[in-house]
Amino acid sequence: MSRNSAFPPSAGDFLLASKRCEITVLQQLLQMGQLVGRVSQLIHVLQRERGTVNIYLCSQGALFGERLAGRTQDVEQAELAVQRQLAQLDAATAPLASASRLFSRIACALHNLTALPALRRQVRQQQVSQPAAMDTFNNIIHSLLALVFEAADACVEPAMTRALIAMFSFMQGKELAGQERAIGAAGFAAMQFSEASHQQLLMLIEGQERCFHTFSEFADEQSLAQWRRIQQQDDREFERLRRIACTQLQLSDRADTSLRWFEITSARIDLMKQIEDRLEEALMASCRHSLAEARRSLEVDYVGYVPQQARESYAVFVATPLGEASPLMGDGINPRLGRSMMELIQQQSQRLQVLSEELATARATLHERKQIERAKGLLIRHRGLTEEEAHRLLLKMAMNQNKRLIEIANAMLAVADILPATGDTP
Amino acid sequence: MSRNSAFPPSAGDFLLASKRCEITVLQQLLQMGQLVGRVSQLIHVLQRERGTVNIYLCSQGALFGERLAGRTQDVEQAELAVQRQLAQLDAATAPLASASRLFSRIACALHNLTALPALRRQVRQQQVSQPAAMDTFNNIIHSLLALVFEAADACVEPAMTRALIAMFSFMQGKELAGQERAIGAAGFAAMQFSEASHQQLLMLIEGQERCFHTFSEFADEQSLAQWRRIQQQDDREFERLRRIACTQLQLSDRADTSLRWFEITSARIDLMKQIEDRLEEALMASCRHSLAEARRSLEVDYVGYVPQQARESYAVFVATPLGEASPLMGDGINPRLGRSMMELIQQQSQRLQVLSEELATARATLHERKQIERAKGLLIRHRGLTEEEAHRLLLKMAMNQNKRLIEIANAMLAVADILPATGDTP
Repeated sequence: MSRNSAFPPSAGDFLLASKRCEITVLQQLLQMGQLVGRVSQLIHVLQRERGTVNIYLCSQGALFGERLAGRTQDVEQAELAVQRQLAQLDAATAPLASASRLFSRIACALHNLTALPALRRQVRQQQVSQPAAMDTFNNIIHSLLALVFEAADACVEPAMTRALIAMFSFMQGKELAGQERAIGAAGFAAMQFSEASHQQLLMLIEGQERCFHTFSEFADEQSLAQWRRIQQQDDREFERLRRIACTQLQLSDRADTSLRWFEITSARIDLMKQIEDRLEEALMASCRHSLAEARRSLEVDYVGYVPQQARESYAVFVATPLGEASPLMGDGINPRLGRSMMELIQQQSQRLQVLSEELATARATLHERKQIERAKGLLIRHRGLTEEEAHRLLLKMAMNQNKRLIEIANAMLAVADILPATGDTP
Repeated sequence: MSRNSAFPPSAGDFLLASKRCEITVLQQLLQMGQLVGRVSQLIHVLQRERGTVNIYLCSQGALFGERLAGRTQDVEQAELAVQRQLAQLDAATAPLASASRLFSRIACALHNLTALPALRRQVRQQQVSQPAAMDTFNNIIHSLLALVFEAADACVEPAMTRALIAMFSFMQGKELAGQERAIGAAGFAAMQFSEASHQQLLMLIEGQERCFHTFSEFADEQSLAQWRRIQQQDDREFERLRRIACTQLQLSDRADTSLRWFEITSARIDLMKQIEDRLEEALMASCRHSLAEARRSLEVDYVGYVPQQARESYAVFVATPLGEASPLMGDGINPRLGRSMMELIQQQSQRLQVLSEELATARATLHERKQIERAKGLLIRHRGLTEEEAHRLLLKMAMNQNKRLIEIANAMLAVADILPATGDTP
């Protein structure tokens, strides 16, 4: 405000600034959307590398050795695209109120990614166990998903928040599908599944259903229609192998079932990536639409004449040298069609109010997820459980009491103060 | 990120950026706190001018004519201080996600303030009715309070959010006390109170209690202790006059009771301003403390050596010319005491998580207030009520059903879709 406005600042100056802030925020969200798209791609190729490594290690190096280099190359390429996008996160994004959380998530993801080169050397020399290798991949993907969740949480535009929730939920479901593929492939290769694997697989299937349910609540029509088409294709062979993996202990099938399982589940995951790409398109389209609308409104409703460059970015707006004649008339506003300043102010204020209410509605879902994560965190800290055990305990309590997961989580958080600590400070 | 970091960006770069964003946000909040302090002062002198105008108009110009000029001067001075603070809201504040709402509120307040010079001319010529003059003042003060609410809503630091909620609630209670003073003074001057005035006064008293209750939930210890001391001083004469104003229709008291009422209530409101000043101090102290703590942590925990100016502002951080040697070692971080990068990342991530949970708790109160405002808005739009009527209807429904105001508001919002519209689009 300080460098291009006359003193004292007028209502028109701030009305204009309000509109321009909207545009700035949308520009930031556009960057965020691009980052989420790159991360989606990186996760996809990481899942493929994980799957390949899985088969390679399970077959004691007999299978897929020739594919390892290609998978690595794909990941490195996707990593580079993410890094380029990260390098573009500039001062405009930084002052976002939630940028510190987002940046902290990025730091964590980048740090986890640094473990890959060493892991790959160990894989080639078969000096790492299959579960340990899976853990490292899972960990990296988990931190990348956390980054996408944070982007959804940082979003302040309702349509984009909905699109980001749809995308995040779908990505999470796809990751659970990837883990199902890995556990299934290992079990079919060893021709046996343990009780623990059965439990894990059932949880992964249930988790996928939950994720895709949230996705279908928030997704755009087209993505949803495509997803339904894909689901109808899910064939009998997949369901049969799923049933075997979830129920049998010793397998009588031929050993190459493992490859067949891997093939089928990989095709399924590749189809999922197509949905994800469409979701990304919808996300970006929604953002570009809002941005175009906000710019149009700024031009048509607010200002009779503003130089092109000033319309482009807020940065230019605030950097106009002191004393340079403002192109705006009178109060900084040139109301068209005889609308009064008060009408314009009320219109803007009501619009922002409606947006804020829509946002609150969309965010309720994010809030539920956070509460569940917090309840899990409590169990991890106070009962010394792993994340998976905590999740399973919550699910079990919910099933036994015939309640929703969020209800159990809320009940647990309500009594958090009286839970005894086993580890460090809560 | 783009201009001072090596490519590819590292985990350390983003961990540092995360910490620096926290500092930037706190600097923005410091500015916001200063603005709230100036607005508190402006509201206080507006309340005094309103009280003086009230007595002047009720006495047909016989009383307080000599005070008008002084009151006007005080307001103009406070307005100038607010304007100076507004002119300092610069690019650093603008990209705050909620800045568009804040700016829209500022536009509305500034616009309403422009009505004052014309009103004052009408007052001097006694060409405006006492209720109409009160309406203009109430309207201005209402829009200034909305600005403070928006500042609390934009705040992302839990301790400051609590301090801002305490301050906003107290300011609102004080404004209701000011309205009680005005209605009482008019009634005592006319030696009669209507049934409608009784209703209004009871609502204002009840409203004050509610506001001061919220204040006492969120205020710091010292402000609360001082407020309790003041409440014990509230003397019998005030309570006796309050009772008369709320229950009697025709008064037998002497006509100068009006001035006595004005004197007592003004003294009470001046004492409230002292609490408000203390709340403002607590707000700023809390912000400065968090800022000092974040800077200390950046310096001690994160970086071994960063030039002074780079520590001062994020703007400098991002503007460091490309290629200039980074003073940071290795990964951009110089972990002291042998702490690993992962420990630092986890520490930062956990800290942000705790802050985010504390914030969510504090914001529940803001959310309740918003829901009540939304329910009122529904009644205004769908039933054609004034804001006061809407508020009274909600209160009555709550009393009849022995429920809290927020429960009635939530119930009303839940059935919003089936309410018929009387006016424009909802």
